[in-house]
Amino acid sequence: MRIGVLTGGGDCPGLNAVIRAVVRKGVTVYGHEFVGFRDGWRGPLEGDTMPLDVEAVRGILPRGGTILGSSRTNPMKIDGGVEKIKDNLASGGIDALIAIGGEDTLGVAKQLFDRGVHVVGVPKTIDNDLNATDYTFGFDTAVNIAVEAIDRLHTTAESHHRALICEVMGRHAGWIALHAGMAGGANVILIPEKPFDIDRVCAYVESRFKTRYAPIIVVAEGAHPIEGQMALQTGELDAFGHVRLGGIGETLAKEIEKRTGKEARTTVLGHIQRGGTPTAFDRVLATRFGLQAIDAVHSGDFGTMVSLRGTEIVRVGLDEATEEIKTVPAGRYEEAEVFFG
Amino acid sequence: MRIGVLTGGGDCPGLNAVIRAVVRKGVTVYGHEFVGFRDGWRGPLEGDTMPLDVEAVRGILPRGGTILGSSRTNPMKIDGGVEKIKDNLASGGIDALIAIGGEDTLGVAKQLFDRGVHVVGVPKTIDNDLNATDYTFGFDTAVNIAVEAIDRLHTTAESHHRALICEVMGRHAGWIALHAGMAGGANVILIPEKPFDIDRVCAYVESRFKTRYAPIIVVAEGAHPIEGQMALQTGELDAFGHVRLGGIGETLAKEIEKRTGKEARTTVLGHIQRGGTPTAFDRVLATRFGLQAIDAVHSGDFGTMVSLRGTEIVRVGLDEATEEIKTVPAGRYEEAEVFFG
Amino acid sequence: MRIGVLTGGGDCPGLNAVIRAVVRKGVTVYGHEFVGFRDGWRGPLEGDTMPLDVEAVRGILPRGGTILGSSRTNPMKIDGGVEKIKDNLASGGIDALIAIGGEDTLGVAKQLFDRGVHVVGVPKTIDNDLNATDYTFGFDTAVNIAVEAIDRLHTTAESHHRALICEVMGRHAGWIALHAGMAGGANVILIPEKPFDIDRVCAYVESRFKTRYAPIIVVAEGAHPIEGQMALQTGELDAFGHVRLGGIGETLAKEIEKRTGKEARTTVLGHIQRGGTPTAFDRVLATRFGLQAIDAVHSGDFGTMVSLRGTEIVRVGLDEATEEIKTVPAGRYEEAEVFFG
Amino acid sequence: MRIGVLTGGGDCPGLNAVIRAVVRKGVTVYGHEFVGFRDGWRGPLEGDTMPLDVEAVRGILPRGGTILGSSRTNPMKIDGGVEKIKDNLASGGIDALIAIGGEDTLGVAKQLFDRGVHVVGVPKTIDNDLNATDYTFGFDTAVNIAVEAIDRLHTTAESHHRALICEVMGRHAGWIALHAGMAGGANVILIPEKPFDIDRVCAYVESRFKTRYAPIIVVAEGAHPIEGQMALQTGELDAFGHVRLGGIGETLAKEIEKRTGKEARTTVLGHIQRGGTPTAFDRVLATRFGLQAIDAVHSGDFGTMVSLRGTEIVRVGLDEATEEIKTVPAGRYEEAEVFFG
Repeated sequence: MRIGVLTGGGDCPGLNAVIRAVVRKGVTVYGHEFVGFRDGWRGPLEGDTMPLDVEAVRGILPRGGTILGSSRTNPMKIDGGVEKIKDNLASGGIDALIAIGGEDTLGVAKQLFDRGVHVVGVPKTIDNDLNATDYTFGFDTAVNIAVEAIDRLHTTAESHHRALICEVMGRHAGWIALHAGMAGGANVILIPEKPFDIDRVCAYVESRFKTRYAPIIVVAEGAHPIEGQMALQTGELDAFGHVRLGGIGETLAKEIEKRTGKEARTTVLGHIQRGGTPTAFDRVLATRFGLQAIDAVHSGDFGTMVSLRGTEIVRVGLDEATEEIKTVPAGRYEEAEVFFG
Repeated sequence: MRIGVLTGGGDCPGLNAVIRAVVRKGVTVYGHEFVGFRDGWRGPLEGDTMPLDVEAVRGILPRGGTILGSSRTNPMKIDGGVEKIKDNLASGGIDALIAIGGEDTLGVAKQLFDRGVHVVGVPKTIDNDLNATDYTFGFDTAVNIAVEAIDRLHTTAESHHRALICEVMGRHAGWIALHAGMAGGANVILIPEKPFDIDRVCAYVESRFKTRYAPIIVVAEGAHPIEGQMALQTGELDAFGHVRLGGIGETLAKEIEKRTGKEARTTVLGHIQRGGTPTAFDRVLATRFGLQAIDAVHSGDFGTMVSLRGTEIVRVGLDEATEEIKTVPAGRYEEAEVFFG
Repeated sequence: MRIGVLTGGGDCPGLNAVIRAVVRKGVTVYGHEFVGFRDGWRGPLEGDTMPLDVEAVRGILPRGGTILGSSRTNPMKIDGGVEKIKDNLASGGIDALIAIGGEDTLGVAKQLFDRGVHVVGVPKTIDNDLNATDYTFGFDTAVNIAVEAIDRLHTTAESHHRALICEVMGRHAGWIALHAGMAGGANVILIPEKPFDIDRVCAYVESRFKTRYAPIIVVAEGAHPIEGQMALQTGELDAFGHVRLGGIGETLAKEIEKRTGKEARTTVLGHIQRGGTPTAFDRVLATRFGLQAIDAVHSGDFGTMVSLRGTEIVRVGLDEATEEIKTVPAGRYEEAEVFFG
Repeated sequence: MRIGVLTGGGDCPGLNAVIRAVVRKGVTVYGHEFVGFRDGWRGPLEGDTMPLDVEAVRGILPRGGTILGSSRTNPMKIDGGVEKIKDNLASGGIDALIAIGGEDTLGVAKQLFDRGVHVVGVPKTIDNDLNATDYTFGFDTAVNIAVEAIDRLHTTAESHHRALICEVMGRHAGWIALHAGMAGGANVILIPEKPFDIDRVCAYVESRFKTRYAPIIVVAEGAHPIEGQMALQTGELDAFGHVRLGGIGETLAKEIEKRTGKEARTTVLGHIQRGGTPTAFDRVLATRFGLQAIDAVHSGDFGTMVSLRGTEIVRVGLDEATEEIKTVPAGRYEEAEVFFG
């Protein structure tokens, strides 16, 4: 068989580990050939390919990013997009496609499968917000990077009697904030799933200041206060006329300063959460995902995607990738609340 | 309630996180009091205690080791050991005990429970070889430390055209070797569960030398060759007349040198695998174990131990702790073999 | 002798290492006694002290922050401040003072010395901008944290064909940006000492995009464009009516996007640069500074501060601490420019 | 000009950073061409070369090892070695050579220079034992790796009331042990320069056990006891008939156990000290060394090598590379002794 591989959406530590596992097993065990498509769906859409053999994947296991490049190109929004992809696959002699990506990338994969393309998916979301799998690779790395930063903030917070806020990724789901906050010993964790009460947040801050330690607040970028409670910036204009949303971390710092009279400072971790070498957990998970994906292709089990259930890698339907996202259940948040204040 | 806490056996990153979670929730949510017993079962045996309140557990979450100390004291092997413990618990007004430890520590806990002691267990094994739970804390940290070392060895191996062997923990189960080897891109992984064929190992080494990269071998301390195949050291005498077992890593290096004519060197990671700050995964797991353990005590669910199943923390019987150990299944090893050579 | 110790100004990895070295040598070698003053000059001003013996400094060597706390209190700006300090030292039986801090803290130390107080200084500036010493502790840690972040940004930049900007500390001197940028393989480094030409910056960005790699720009917070060249934000009002200065990193991202049509994103490292465990270099330097400081006190060499010259720790006059700051010389910047683009 | 580059001796983090700096400045600023010689002096001896242009050095700055490979081949010990090298340089049109290596590699460089070869040296010794320069790259990385390991050992030592010994590199000079021991808070540091008194070592161990902490001993591989004091292994035969020197770490552990009755365990860091990504300090130093080396070649200043003096990179004669090695002066060791026990 001749198999195409692509990576779509935001980058995520472990993408290269998936690609390597797919190619290594595909070539050495099954004798398949591979073609890399560049920059997500743009690759098959425009027929932009790169060589992908055992030599091409040597040494990439510990490297962040993706050797295939990525983009957010959506062929479904392009006139004749599906036909172009089918034509390019046919003319390139591609028998099957492995698509590694998040909700959007796998949504396209599902639609292509429905139109006859042989495709297997590998789920990727650094936010860990996919119902179809216990964990996704990249999440563990992001959490560890955030925890390392929080560990560092603790000493500054203590030395200066100052509240420190760490804003982490998570627009719709608070998994990174929850895990990083719990592991980092945060005094408050704020997640999108539960609008926060600014009065309680300030009460925690003030109670913490009474110990010899200072408060650390971990906030997901998508967290927000109970409606009407806090004058949130919804869209100031920046110097160039673009709408600019005040980050929740910064807004929160000012509100806490105003209400408690204590200094508060914010660090926004941003892109460093999704770059660099993956943790061991993510390397193993990504590698096992890749092995299972090539097995699925080899056995002709198309329209599926790979998934972690407990300690096993299984296959589920590609449609599960686009189900409602997996948010933090109330019980998990309450577990963490024990440590607030 | 007045609750005793102890940690037994080898140390493991995450022990302090368990202790902290138990005490924080026990005090602030349930209003219980705590007593720390020093050095595993020696503490309740000799009535050696230390104060354990919210202040005592501040700042310990990121710290390796255990503030309670540890030992391998086994009260079952001491005349009247059980009675002494029951007396000391009674005179100290201790209503229940939380025992954090491995097979040995929890085996004692089970026997004490059978004799009427109110005890809840928290499983701890850095080797991850416990059937009763998907993962134990400390394992993820150990694997990450090993992977960091393997990443470092790669560059030396390449620069000097030399085989490098990394010996990791694992006397009876090869989990650390399997995960670290898979995550570190090892060319051969040797585990206790599967006696290795030295001819195949040397074949992998030689095939790897044909690429521009050099071979990395990850070997669990308990791995061994197919019987009779390799002249293994069973016990030379050292300078002080003690029997000294040649480590498998060193023995293997010499055998590879002899058979392939290539240089081979061994690094034995030893104690650095079990020390230092826990990873985010281990901090979260240990914290959740601690929360579940105090819930079990609070609700009087004694004779149980906490366990991870998928993403949930559940309770299982203490007797499961001493069941046959969880070894690496053949399927998991075959997964990894794809990358050998 | 009875000796007071204080730490002033922003925190910096290595402060605890200095304190530990002072106390360990002072007590065990010279037999002196110590008193900790809390929160910089606020301590002696208000007579706020804490015990400081060998037990108090155990285990603090690897810890960031300062066990003594810090503040920016300036007794020179307080009526009768000097007299209050002298009174508190006298009534506390304090024979000498070791002041650990930056330009401000040591400036006060100098003035107190001129008025008869027995004081020895230890220089501290995370920005490394002090003429009187080759390096200051904390700088190496800050640079390593920045480099780790830049390493992570590289993979994201490449995967997404996007320029990434990393804003680091350095209001008046670009040492952190220079060293982190050189060590991180930045394609452009911008420092306060040399106003940048936005046209050249964009030219570097565009030339880099022509390779398969993406541009990384490291910018010191105090860097700025050639006058008049770029519409810089000088002070928009934020939600709470405070003046808010648009960070140079964010401003630069927008300007690059506008001029090149390529995406650009900024990460502001902020407080994580000054927290957490010090590197080996900083621990050794801080320890040696502490040893030299207590030697100076013991031999009555007041009015001095410790300093690194080559590999030696020497003493210089306290007045050197407040000389003109050490900025990046043109030659060092030109060295780095070789790698731009 | 057409310039050859080679790396000889043991590998060392920063070698690739030197190569990159040489090539980047050589090509983009001076317009020179480069040729890589493989595996140290074996390359020019056998005419074994690889392409070395700007593309070849992209992305190698953060990577350990050397893309050129290394060996210990010594052309001076080979009949007609010098002539073969001169012939190969002439036939390859090589105008000058940059040799990156330690005492041996640079000793050869000096002899070739004396026979008319245009050569510039870059000093490399992970042990930092070269008189001609304040520091060499790789040393800071090795020390940081050792400190990270020592930090991890502390928690295990404390939890188990056990002495832990960490054996680090350093056959003839104790710089790594001194810096890592001082930065890691070791209770005893043993270096080759000063034969140790086993009675004093045991006294320190016993005094440390009286605190709630446990002893950590850092020992350079070349350290040894006062003559006659301790029955040292000088050469047992191993299973394969090779002479095997008992490591000092292991020997010391047994001696301490015998004399104090306390448990002692050894970790030998080995090769992980010299692999992996360089620290920021080493990347900056190696880069600046490379820039200075190509400047020296460009200006025809042959027979020199680059060197760090304070914060400046200067040139010294190649003969300084083979002077007596730089050992730890008594004063530096006494500084560290303050913290023993």
